[in-house]
Amino acid sequence: MDYQQIINDIYRDCLAEKDNGKLADYIPELTQVDPDKFGIQVTTLDGHGYGVGDYQEKFSIQSIAKLFSFTLALKLIGNALWKRVGVEPSGDPFNSLVQLEHEKGIPRNPLINAGALVICDVLVSELENPKAAFLDFMRTLSGEQDIRYNTTVAESEKANGYKNAAHINLMKSFDNIHNKVATVLDLYYHICAVEMSCEELSSAALLFANNGILPGNKERILSKSITKRINATTQLCGLYDQAGSFAFKVGLPGKSGVGGGIVAIHPGKYTISVWSPKLNEKGNSHKGIQALELFTTNTELSIF
Amino acid sequence: MDYQQIINDIYRDCLAEKDNGKLADYIPELTQVDPDKFGIQVTTLDGHGYGVGDYQEKFSIQSIAKLFSFTLALKLIGNALWKRVGVEPSGDPFNSLVQLEHEKGIPRNPLINAGALVICDVLVSELENPKAAFLDFMRTLSGEQDIRYNTTVAESEKANGYKNAAHINLMKSFDNIHNKVATVLDLYYHICAVEMSCEELSSAALLFANNGILPGNKERILSKSITKRINATTQLCGLYDQAGSFAFKVGLPGKSGVGGGIVAIHPGKYTISVWSPKLNEKGNSHKGIQALELFTTNTELSIF
Amino acid sequence: MDYQQIINDIYRDCLAEKDNGKLADYIPELTQVDPDKFGIQVTTLDGHGYGVGDYQEKFSIQSIAKLFSFTLALKLIGNALWKRVGVEPSGDPFNSLVQLEHEKGIPRNPLINAGALVICDVLVSELENPKAAFLDFMRTLSGEQDIRYNTTVAESEKANGYKNAAHINLMKSFDNIHNKVATVLDLYYHICAVEMSCEELSSAALLFANNGILPGNKERILSKSITKRINATTQLCGLYDQAGSFAFKVGLPGKSGVGGGIVAIHPGKYTISVWSPKLNEKGNSHKGIQALELFTTNTELSIF
Amino acid sequence: MDYQQIINDIYRDCLAEKDNGKLADYIPELTQVDPDKFGIQVTTLDGHGYGVGDYQEKFSIQSIAKLFSFTLALKLIGNALWKRVGVEPSGDPFNSLVQLEHEKGIPRNPLINAGALVICDVLVSELENPKAAFLDFMRTLSGEQDIRYNTTVAESEKANGYKNAAHINLMKSFDNIHNKVATVLDLYYHICAVEMSCEELSSAALLFANNGILPGNKERILSKSITKRINATTQLCGLYDQAGSFAFKVGLPGKSGVGGGIVAIHPGKYTISVWSPKLNEKGNSHKGIQALELFTTNTELSIF
Repeated sequence: MDYQQIINDIYRDCLAEKDNGKLADYIPELTQVDPDKFGIQVTTLDGHGYGVGDYQEKFSIQSIAKLFSFTLALKLIGNALWKRVGVEPSGDPFNSLVQLEHEKGIPRNPLINAGALVICDVLVSELENPKAAFLDFMRTLSGEQDIRYNTTVAESEKANGYKNAAHINLMKSFDNIHNKVATVLDLYYHICAVEMSCEELSSAALLFANNGILPGNKERILSKSITKRINATTQLCGLYDQAGSFAFKVGLPGKSGVGGGIVAIHPGKYTISVWSPKLNEKGNSHKGIQALELFTTNTELSIF
Repeated sequence: MDYQQIINDIYRDCLAEKDNGKLADYIPELTQVDPDKFGIQVTTLDGHGYGVGDYQEKFSIQSIAKLFSFTLALKLIGNALWKRVGVEPSGDPFNSLVQLEHEKGIPRNPLINAGALVICDVLVSELENPKAAFLDFMRTLSGEQDIRYNTTVAESEKANGYKNAAHINLMKSFDNIHNKVATVLDLYYHICAVEMSCEELSSAALLFANNGILPGNKERILSKSITKRINATTQLCGLYDQAGSFAFKVGLPGKSGVGGGIVAIHPGKYTISVWSPKLNEKGNSHKGIQALELFTTNTELSIF
Repeated sequence: MDYQQIINDIYRDCLAEKDNGKLADYIPELTQVDPDKFGIQVTTLDGHGYGVGDYQEKFSIQSIAKLFSFTLALKLIGNALWKRVGVEPSGDPFNSLVQLEHEKGIPRNPLINAGALVICDVLVSELENPKAAFLDFMRTLSGEQDIRYNTTVAESEKANGYKNAAHINLMKSFDNIHNKVATVLDLYYHICAVEMSCEELSSAALLFANNGILPGNKERILSKSITKRINATTQLCGLYDQAGSFAFKVGLPGKSGVGGGIVAIHPGKYTISVWSPKLNEKGNSHKGIQALELFTTNTELSIF
Repeated sequence: MDYQQIINDIYRDCLAEKDNGKLADYIPELTQVDPDKFGIQVTTLDGHGYGVGDYQEKFSIQSIAKLFSFTLALKLIGNALWKRVGVEPSGDPFNSLVQLEHEKGIPRNPLINAGALVICDVLVSELENPKAAFLDFMRTLSGEQDIRYNTTVAESEKANGYKNAAHINLMKSFDNIHNKVATVLDLYYHICAVEMSCEELSSAALLFANNGILPGNKERILSKSITKRINATTQLCGLYDQAGSFAFKVGLPGKSGVGGGIVAIHPGKYTISVWSPKLNEKGNSHKGIQALELFTTNTELSIF
């Protein structure tokens, strides 16, 4: 399969279409991104990479970080995690408090905001220096050392994050946050403010396509079984209340962020990352979803 | 892979474990089933079948029928279907009216009760004799002629189906039911009262594992693309609010029924059906889920 | 206090103002009413009546009937009623199913649709001929024999009443409806289709202002204590989710109907009925609420 | 009417009955109160007071403060208040976030927690020194100088108030809190930590029974019209989701607090305060409601 040709065609076709999406605007930093940025990267298990457009430019990975923080927490405490967070799709907009209250402070899954806050609470409990440890983990997975937090973005989000403050306080009222609210929020906003390129994200996600093993050095990070379960959770919960439509159109487990990035995984084959900052009304990259749909349609490859 | 040995082992191990599940008890007919029935059937794309226990005994397929009525409706009206039903997981117990009211009579997906009622409304609109046509469809897919409705079960469910009556009247108030309420309910209760064995169900579902083609006579029933989309919807929505946990444990698209049956699909490989009438607190077969989890764990085969 | 002068002034002032309300349009019969009809009637405990405009013209009392059916049911079965319906305001739009499902088929109060359906179920259980008995009750309370059902309206509402069918089926699924759904709905639509004038409604409600005694013949219909409790329930629940605003502006217990009527009670003093068919966005008579607010403001009389 | 005899009898009868209520236990300070404390005070418009039991002992007024902070805010900004808070009963448990999210950060009424937080935000915006001003207001209304905050209670509630922190952050995310979250919460917890006796509370509430005029010095604090509206709001919203039952049983506007106090108002006649720290499952004083029900039943006085 000529991945380079396929993504080149998709890149051209997507650029030709009108994109009515809008930049995330809840913090000033995200509105300063060039809305026309667009990159695609495919990385296969044998180590080949195929990129087009702005695939080497770093952007704010935002909620994509939740896939990795979830993985790190699962590595640290294993099945004990499931007492504190579920594995069911939320069925509700990603910022809804309704379900959380109804279910007594147990978030539906680790990939929605509330679940990711519980995950951060776990990391704070388990790690000496969770901020450094998370960066280390991302560097190990991607094989790339130059991965950092954008602290301006982190601070700006923290200053405007009243909804997340509502979520975490509600969970704290149900005793599902064990550390100080401010400490957990600080970690949360930092991991969301990691900056990576499509190329780096595709590399970092390869272990999910490879049964938990880093293809580069053959290091096993996760068991085969845990890897499958992470992929299943990502399939069902990775795109908030657009998870069904994403599975329907794209047919791969994927995780999106409001920075306009999406990473998707084809177990046993490849990972694919896209970045285009204009978001649809569900908060997912408009062009990103379009590109991924074209990719699995044109390659006739999906897990289904 | 020695499928026969694997399912024999699973059958034995599951029988050895205590099953605290309970028979569905909302209609008398379902309580008369022998609670200890247990069957497993695996059917591969090359036409080989492997069965153990009561795999040839017919049972009430109940909501498993929704996978097939959804398929038939999609065949009949194509993408026009998506104006009337969504593809997102419900995130709520399967009999909840909340979401339906909030979303103005559009059910979340075709595999929950409300969505299946809309599907039946489509079938009533499109088909001269929908009850006969649905049986024909099931006979075509399974290659088995002796598939019938248990009308006693259908009538008994109709007489007790106040919650479904609430659902359909609510959707009718939002103009999302076009035919008479009684006509649509009659079809709905009939298709849920179809009786099939594990062996027949596995055969009937093979097209989903085979890109839409019947393996026996090579007849194409669905396009490859539509088949993938049905599988994706089944993955996300087939087990009500246990869909996430099912994906997590089993890792295959599957559909369950309160008769105790579950059918699951491994695209490109096989279908597997299980039947054990005792249900867990979510209304899914307790032993059935256990058997499927063991199967994908022991074979190390799942789509993720 | 010169009630005649006061209502004359209010009548004139309300006519002078623009009314952006809209006729109820869910059944054809209600759209054929002259939208400019407007009547006010005050009746005091000493038997004096003061009317202006169309106060002697009969209209469809609709949900105002719920105040009287509630009263009749309470007379028949007393406190046993409270096992089947609550006394709390609904806090939600009048046709919401959410709360009903959450609270297992027990409606919040007897004055919302779901509660009135339970009340009708009680009447069907308790009375030989509930339709005749309800008319008798209204004739006794008002001292007026010419009170009838508009069966065309009743049948039209029945044919379009999918939301009420959803409510009653949901409650039946929770065993809170004891009779046949169709029988209960038939009674419900009939009592809502009673036609009365402002003058007659004011007479019929006088017992609520008079500690349960008919002022005309001194017959005690309700105990003093039960009467107070009915008034309290009416105060809190009589105007659906506009109850708070109605109490705030008008300060009297009142019950509205989508026919454009409202009846309000000043215990120990008078009753007041208004009729103007144009409804605000909450389904209550726009001019009716305006007139009542002016009345309690100008007379400086309210229960608070 | 011999009020002293009536409350003596009620006091005796209530003491004789078993009280299964429980002390509020979410902060240590509230669990140290003697659970057997019980006081009743009636104060009439002519200035006579009648007390029994612990009617002169100060207790934490908690949410009763919300009636007074609401009054002060209404005095300060008048109808502008209604852009930021509603007047409808909540129909939901007092700590629910659901409705608040659904209604975009506008609390249902000023007497639930969320509404009282908005009221505190108004006071912070309008007053130089809101904590001092609120105490002054309470001193003016009650004619009693020795009214103070229990800062230990305030700090303890603040340290445990995660649910209120969730509420206020959610409202802040909808721009319905204009000041710093911490500043508003500080005022909120202070006003809830005011300590007053039944006797003082009855005096402080007299203006609501007297058309807005302090009976002692004839100073007009509120207009007649505003006073009626406050009473209407208190009637519909003062006891959270027990408002309907309270109206039904007691028939007077009233406001409760988790300290076990309740104050009720009979416009034109008297105020009555009760204190008994054991709470029913709705968070209202068990014996307090019982005493008030007996009082309006025995005196046959209620507003209905």
